[in-house]
Amino acid sequence: MKMLIKNAQIITSAYEPVLNGSIAVENDEIKYVGEIPECFSADSVIDAHGFIAMPGLVNSHTHSAMGILRNFADDLPFNKWLFDKIIPAEAKLTPEDIYWGCMLGISEMIKSGTTCFNDMYLHMESIARAVADTGIRANLSYGPITSDARGNGFLADYTRCESFIKKHSNSNIKTSMEIHSVYLYEHDLLKEAASFAKSLETKVHIHLAESESEILFCREKYSKTPFEIAYDTGILGVPVIAAHCVKTINSDIEILKKADVTVVHCPSSNMKLGNGFAPIESFLNENMSVGIGTDGSASNNNLNMFEEMHLTAMIHKGYNNNPECIPASAVIEMATEKGAYASGFLNCGKIASGYKADIILINTQTAHMCPLHDAKAAIVYSAQAGDVDTVMINGKIMMKNRKLLTIDEEMIISRVNDIACRIKQ
Amino acid sequence: MKMLIKNAQIITSAYEPVLNGSIAVENDEIKYVGEIPECFSADSVIDAHGFIAMPGLVNSHTHSAMGILRNFADDLPFNKWLFDKIIPAEAKLTPEDIYWGCMLGISEMIKSGTTCFNDMYLHMESIARAVADTGIRANLSYGPITSDARGNGFLADYTRCESFIKKHSNSNIKTSMEIHSVYLYEHDLLKEAASFAKSLETKVHIHLAESESEILFCREKYSKTPFEIAYDTGILGVPVIAAHCVKTINSDIEILKKADVTVVHCPSSNMKLGNGFAPIESFLNENMSVGIGTDGSASNNNLNMFEEMHLTAMIHKGYNNNPECIPASAVIEMATEKGAYASGFLNCGKIASGYKADIILINTQTAHMCPLHDAKAAIVYSAQAGDVDTVMINGKIMMKNRKLLTIDEEMIISRVNDIACRIKQ
Repeated sequence: MKMLIKNAQIITSAYEPVLNGSIAVENDEIKYVGEIPECFSADSVIDAHGFIAMPGLVNSHTHSAMGILRNFADDLPFNKWLFDKIIPAEAKLTPEDIYWGCMLGISEMIKSGTTCFNDMYLHMESIARAVADTGIRANLSYGPITSDARGNGFLADYTRCESFIKKHSNSNIKTSMEIHSVYLYEHDLLKEAASFAKSLETKVHIHLAESESEILFCREKYSKTPFEIAYDTGILGVPVIAAHCVKTINSDIEILKKADVTVVHCPSSNMKLGNGFAPIESFLNENMSVGIGTDGSASNNNLNMFEEMHLTAMIHKGYNNNPECIPASAVIEMATEKGAYASGFLNCGKIASGYKADIILINTQTAHMCPLHDAKAAIVYSAQAGDVDTVMINGKIMMKNRKLLTIDEEMIISRVNDIACRIKQ
Repeated sequence: MKMLIKNAQIITSAYEPVLNGSIAVENDEIKYVGEIPECFSADSVIDAHGFIAMPGLVNSHTHSAMGILRNFADDLPFNKWLFDKIIPAEAKLTPEDIYWGCMLGISEMIKSGTTCFNDMYLHMESIARAVADTGIRANLSYGPITSDARGNGFLADYTRCESFIKKHSNSNIKTSMEIHSVYLYEHDLLKEAASFAKSLETKVHIHLAESESEILFCREKYSKTPFEIAYDTGILGVPVIAAHCVKTINSDIEILKKADVTVVHCPSSNMKLGNGFAPIESFLNENMSVGIGTDGSASNNNLNMFEEMHLTAMIHKGYNNNPECIPASAVIEMATEKGAYASGFLNCGKIASGYKADIILINTQTAHMCPLHDAKAAIVYSAQAGDVDTVMINGKIMMKNRKLLTIDEEMIISRVNDIACRIKQ
């Protein structure tokens, strides 16, 4: 299958100049970019005049099924939000609910230009099923540690974790281990889990230094920062995707750098829950790898990577009183190639020969995108998720003219509305 | 002309419960809300099942024609941005360019649910013409003070200012006087302008305490804050719309309260230019009137009030480490009735009997708006501008199914692209 996207303004990658030309796709890969050799004979052609073509966005930290709890609990103190609202509601969710919640999340992500996501949640088998059913790209993290139903702390089931990690890993899905955080579990359990991750040669996906209360707890109980605990328990001995990292001091940055951790910035969630502003500009100055994530829709309340890109470009300029802080190109890099790298897809996140054909087309023929003085700035500062017109994943068109081609959005909305009704009771 | 909007979820105003029902519009006014008397016989009916109906948004501080310079200069130090890029480009703009820039801005505003805006810029006659041509609601501020072309400081032309203010004021357009700021002009000129505003019984629209450099300048030259200067020169002797107010100390708040100033929060612009976070939570705690504005598209880079609402709800929670700070209802109040009040339209900004029929319908039948646990939170935390489906101003439908009915968007885009090309040369 050969496809030609012609007449586009192409953001090939964050720091290369914008290119006017074509993209030739063969099966699931990008074959040529810019001028296309005459020998390339396309089976189908998309005229992308008036569109920006760019790599699909990567949502590097989310709990995609939490859309069921969107706008369910807002503007509340953190403990009230979590313990009185979210956890009791989550306890009612069945594996089938999670499947439909994830289908809703995938619908939302594709409609907002996300072609790959990094998930951790309950019932990951349901998430894996939704990812396989839709053909979106994902890195799925399975948490071996769960609460003991009898209230005796936490239990680990490494057999099921290993089985998930081996069963679901393929060219389109990567798998990792979830360790929720360093503050929930005793250190022996953290060490055991870290050692198991090392034996499986898998990544760890973790929440790290999200809140002030986490910092206080770690300091009071262990006289350490969460990063020091992650290092001391061996978690940083494997590649780590660390979400949030809001409360990071200079010595922590040294630890993160040495362990080559990918930080995932979740600006909406960090602000909405009152946690603050992660020092993203410091991470970038140290040439660390930083992705961007939405977190779940219970603390966001959507999976809109255009919103997160916008926030990433805006809030640190305000917080640091520096209009040069985190320019548009840096934001695009985080939301594409850095996210793909964090998720374990080394051949995604750019429009370049040999890369996977994960491409989005963004409509620029609207008042709010006119005039198009600078395509990269327009993506970060002016565009909305709803400007995404066409989404291709692995060379397959998933959305065209804003219509999902392989997913029944209306049916999914109806299913999730039924679940939401039940949960609310 | 009688119109019925039925089956909507209605956000009548910020703090009232969401209502399921109908809205009856007669000519330019809302006649009934909720249950409609049988005697109301509609000429046309809109079935708003699956839509939220809410008051049109009010953009309380913008320079609408600056869309011409959208994404023209980004991620730059403030002085380089303003003096090397924006001011030289603005010098090339003709009154006709400003007209088309404003037409672009109005197109963008209507497509993103804004039904009223508060503008100050060059060539205000062109802005007034665009407003009259389109039928959008606006408060237009004319600045009598301009740079002397021979470089001898500033000149004031009160005759033209008075003529503009009297000529353009009608039921749909209010007029005010622009005083750019307190740091550009000598105090004698500020006093003269303030006195003239008082004699005309007109409002003043001003940039106040936007940046640290403004604070330093006022302190070094006059040992005063910008608010103290505004008070001492008589500017606060008339109703004032004060944009930004980022750098505000407690004693300033007392001054603002006493003068009943409406502050306009411009979160995108304040962050993008590196100015920081205005103490909006303090203003609200003091029961001050606060609106929301986009500022111009050269420092935003769009006129998307959904983005500004989202930022208003998010950034102060992060900055104050308080997830309860500025809840969704407060944001909606600022973006509707408080903005309408600031702009001088006391019968706008609510869906209530006797109010002007400025109503927007927002599509909720999309993945990112599902499930609709809370309509107000959904508007602030989940919605995009592109979810606005229908816009009515003064009882007249301006957009339906996302198509502008009275404005030729394509032609305007083409005109502005031509202007942008010329400016760039």
